[in-house]
Amino acid sequence: MLKNPSTKYRAAKSIGLTDRTWPNATITRAPIWCSVDMRDGNQALIEPMDIPRKLKMFEQLVKIGFKEIEVGFPSASQIEFDFLRKLIDENRIPDDVTIQVLTQARPELIERTFESLVGVPRVIVHLYNATAPVMRRVVLNMSEDEIVQLAVDHAQMFKDLAAKQPATDWTFEYSPEMYSDTELAFSARVIDAVTAVWEPTPAKKCIINLPTTVECCTSNVFADMVEWTGRHIARRDAIVLSIHPHNDRGTGTATAELALLAGADRLEGCLFGNGERTGNLDVVNVALNMYSQGVSPELDFSDIDAIRSTVEYCNQLPVHPRHPYVGDLVYTSFSGSHQDAIKKAFGARKDGDVWEMPYLPIDPKDVGRSYEAVIRVNSQSGKGGISYLLESEYGLQLPRRLQIEFSQAVQRAMDATGKEFTAKDLWGIFEREYGLNAGSKVEYQLATKGEVTEISGTVSVIDQSWSVKGQGAGPIDAWVQGVGEAMGRSIRVLDYTEHAIGQGADAKAVAYVEMRVDDAHTVYGVAMDANIVTASLRAIVSGVNRVPAVNTSPAHETAAS
Amino acid sequence: MLKNPSTKYRAAKSIGLTDRTWPNATITRAPIWCSVDMRDGNQALIEPMDIPRKLKMFEQLVKIGFKEIEVGFPSASQIEFDFLRKLIDENRIPDDVTIQVLTQARPELIERTFESLVGVPRVIVHLYNATAPVMRRVVLNMSEDEIVQLAVDHAQMFKDLAAKQPATDWTFEYSPEMYSDTELAFSARVIDAVTAVWEPTPAKKCIINLPTTVECCTSNVFADMVEWTGRHIARRDAIVLSIHPHNDRGTGTATAELALLAGADRLEGCLFGNGERTGNLDVVNVALNMYSQGVSPELDFSDIDAIRSTVEYCNQLPVHPRHPYVGDLVYTSFSGSHQDAIKKAFGARKDGDVWEMPYLPIDPKDVGRSYEAVIRVNSQSGKGGISYLLESEYGLQLPRRLQIEFSQAVQRAMDATGKEFTAKDLWGIFEREYGLNAGSKVEYQLATKGEVTEISGTVSVIDQSWSVKGQGAGPIDAWVQGVGEAMGRSIRVLDYTEHAIGQGADAKAVAYVEMRVDDAHTVYGVAMDANIVTASLRAIVSGVNRVPAVNTSPAHETAAS
Repeated sequence: MLKNPSTKYRAAKSIGLTDRTWPNATITRAPIWCSVDMRDGNQALIEPMDIPRKLKMFEQLVKIGFKEIEVGFPSASQIEFDFLRKLIDENRIPDDVTIQVLTQARPELIERTFESLVGVPRVIVHLYNATAPVMRRVVLNMSEDEIVQLAVDHAQMFKDLAAKQPATDWTFEYSPEMYSDTELAFSARVIDAVTAVWEPTPAKKCIINLPTTVECCTSNVFADMVEWTGRHIARRDAIVLSIHPHNDRGTGTATAELALLAGADRLEGCLFGNGERTGNLDVVNVALNMYSQGVSPELDFSDIDAIRSTVEYCNQLPVHPRHPYVGDLVYTSFSGSHQDAIKKAFGARKDGDVWEMPYLPIDPKDVGRSYEAVIRVNSQSGKGGISYLLESEYGLQLPRRLQIEFSQAVQRAMDATGKEFTAKDLWGIFEREYGLNAGSKVEYQLATKGEVTEISGTVSVIDQSWSVKGQGAGPIDAWVQGVGEAMGRSIRVLDYTEHAIGQGADAKAVAYVEMRVDDAHTVYGVAMDANIVTASLRAIVSGVNRVPAVNTSPAHETAAS
Repeated sequence: MLKNPSTKYRAAKSIGLTDRTWPNATITRAPIWCSVDMRDGNQALIEPMDIPRKLKMFEQLVKIGFKEIEVGFPSASQIEFDFLRKLIDENRIPDDVTIQVLTQARPELIERTFESLVGVPRVIVHLYNATAPVMRRVVLNMSEDEIVQLAVDHAQMFKDLAAKQPATDWTFEYSPEMYSDTELAFSARVIDAVTAVWEPTPAKKCIINLPTTVECCTSNVFADMVEWTGRHIARRDAIVLSIHPHNDRGTGTATAELALLAGADRLEGCLFGNGERTGNLDVVNVALNMYSQGVSPELDFSDIDAIRSTVEYCNQLPVHPRHPYVGDLVYTSFSGSHQDAIKKAFGARKDGDVWEMPYLPIDPKDVGRSYEAVIRVNSQSGKGGISYLLESEYGLQLPRRLQIEFSQAVQRAMDATGKEFTAKDLWGIFEREYGLNAGSKVEYQLATKGEVTEISGTVSVIDQSWSVKGQGAGPIDAWVQGVGEAMGRSIRVLDYTEHAIGQGADAKAVAYVEMRVDDAHTVYGVAMDANIVTASLRAIVSGVNRVPAVNTSPAHETAAS
């Protein structure tokens, strides 16, 4: 690293907007959200999503409440084309959702894009070309006039091709690529040239999207740029002004928020900030920030663990334990003084009170989580924590979220006894908490037919037993379905880990299964067995048994409203 | 989640500062940095650092160039006390570094704190007490006047105790706890009361630290708060105004940057944003943002991988692959059009040019990384990527960074042949790239004496061989030392993974070792062997052999400057 980088790097230019109004604004309503998980997010994955993953992601996005979803770049590859056709041909797009597709400004790609869209009821078609000086000079070798002409020609092509498919409700979107690095006046010139072709009206708007392709300035400067652009482009009342932030400077969320203050109407981004390099804007983060200020984001994150689980499955990348609102550790306090303050504030809180809780920006329950006060069994030693003792003495490698969950059982035991615990004490608490000796038994037979596994068997817990019959993609899947039906519970597996303890004839497998029970509780089940399948199945029974069944029938409403 | 959260949550209040000046400011010099990794960061770890980890972290922070380091909370536990004594008694604090310790405003804790500091040449003692309304009402049950008195009494105690140890150069720091949630006028009142006791002067300043204990507003509102406070507190010219951001809203970095614009002089934070919940401010992120704008941060991140490796070891938490400036994926492009633009721009770039590279905010070389263009062997299938094929056909589970590294070897081969590769082709490239069949041989004897392992043996590669003698904490450590000396190379292990392939008599272990060679190249070595130790040792030889030895003697300077 250069001690003095001033000859190699250049500061972002101030744009001299001194009459800015955005610092006095506040965010009072949700923007239009557009998910780009399946396009910008997908193209940044080590393993791009296959069709089943794409479908799962699409359904998740719809469930959250996105009304605009960029589903791909259909002219870029056959899989993108095929997936789009699948959505259209199988009528998988809900009536209140509009899909979006991206294309570069090249004739053969635009033609292929419109071909991929035959029969779609509604769609946003998104055109982009490079406008930034470095791209003009080094990559395209084109003058400013030539860039404007490039944009105009392809905007016209959009109009002509759309006219040939009049049954579709078309919306056009244009992005000056690397807006963040383009001279403001030139961006405005290109945008005006494109909207002059498209002729949007307040009743039939087009979308103008401003990408911070690479973040290159502090977030206040970007807000100045957005306010400037909003004031200087033609046909502003016929335009949905959209922002597409990335996160190179770690300020994607702030950039989006300040851009909303500066007049942006719409945000493009990904769940938990997936995307090329440092990622796209994290839409969950912005939405829940808004929520914490009493503004409804109009998106539903009430089961954020299930969403994380889907995203980790589809993207094959982890969500960090400190990721805002969703990480494993974000509703956890380790500090005694924090724990004490939270405990007192929970005690003082009454139903209907405004949320005013030290150290917790939102009520974890609102996103399906719970507050977790994590203690250290013996923080003096610095390495004598619960998981350390269980691993060194008993060989258990607890997954991180299970460590957090279990530490609360230890906390309760410690509150009750007031004494310091040995590894043996902890093992006893662990055995009780997860019912390792509860005498639950499973018996089963497995049959695999093609890609379907069928299971039938029995579960016994103390003096009750159930007959189980289920099928699924594998033994766990089949068992979850069967046990759920037999016990009248809803069970969804969120995470699964299994490892060996001991060696040779004494070796056992221990299975840890994280699951969502009755759509209300996220818990772990744990079991040990010499047979790895049996351990897994018993772990599921362990988890279900840790959530008391509640016999609820919906109360009859006795009065209107 | 509530569809309409307006009854449960409340928006942050505007503070009505309309004559703000910060949006016209720019960052032109580095702030005073203070690392709180060993205090705020450490207290948020599942396993807090033991003494060896604390020492390693302290040395890393010194090496980066931090001049102020909060090393602990000595009155909170014996380990914190002992570690502080170790630093002092063993003269481990460099002359240009000032350590900092934290204490709550309680007499017995303050006494114990000063006791822990006997004999230290310089120190910052950091006092805090709660000032926020929810803390006053619910946790402390104290009036505003009582809170002011609490702060004044304990500030006086600082002064009295410091006077008894005149050999030490004392600096005092005060934090109104949850400044972000405290009425501005009340924070200013408490701050003024404390500085009235301490009587700082421009020649002997005190530090006033403003924590966003929990982020609760957009970053522009926090900047308004800081500008307001800077204008309204007494003795401003005798105060170092410090900021301590957290990251609950995902905007810690932006909050710090806008606070610098608003007049803050000093930043407290952690490496890569470790800390309670969503973490503290990521000081690396802010420093490198500054760097990318041509402003020297006065901190050295030229070997960012080694720093990450230390931080992951000390914190026992991962750094996310998309973490700004340091994540595995942040200097990587997957998109063909991005790769093409970067290739052209590298081609057009001349030595001494200002950095203007599409998609790369800084030159990866400046932090010891390289640009990586990652291709997909067969992105059509979506699951036919390189690592998928090597895993499904050959059982190799490549670590993520190795996947990225290896994909470039594949890229080169593909550029040369232009054809699509089968799993067998990939295996061939892998074998060649990592020298699996290069005929390197290792022979060795191991002896363990107490905690030291000694190794002696030979390495042969083609027609050369070396005698190796080394010692270390284990066989790898000893081997690295011995091979490094024998071959005249510097070798540091950054990461190590090993797994089994196959079963029974045919089972082999494959070892992947990521290492820093000659302080200049981060590479993987790979080897397979039936013996897990042999596989590891050969992997190290594989890695070293991938970096050509350069015979450099420092050139004599022939002219001044």
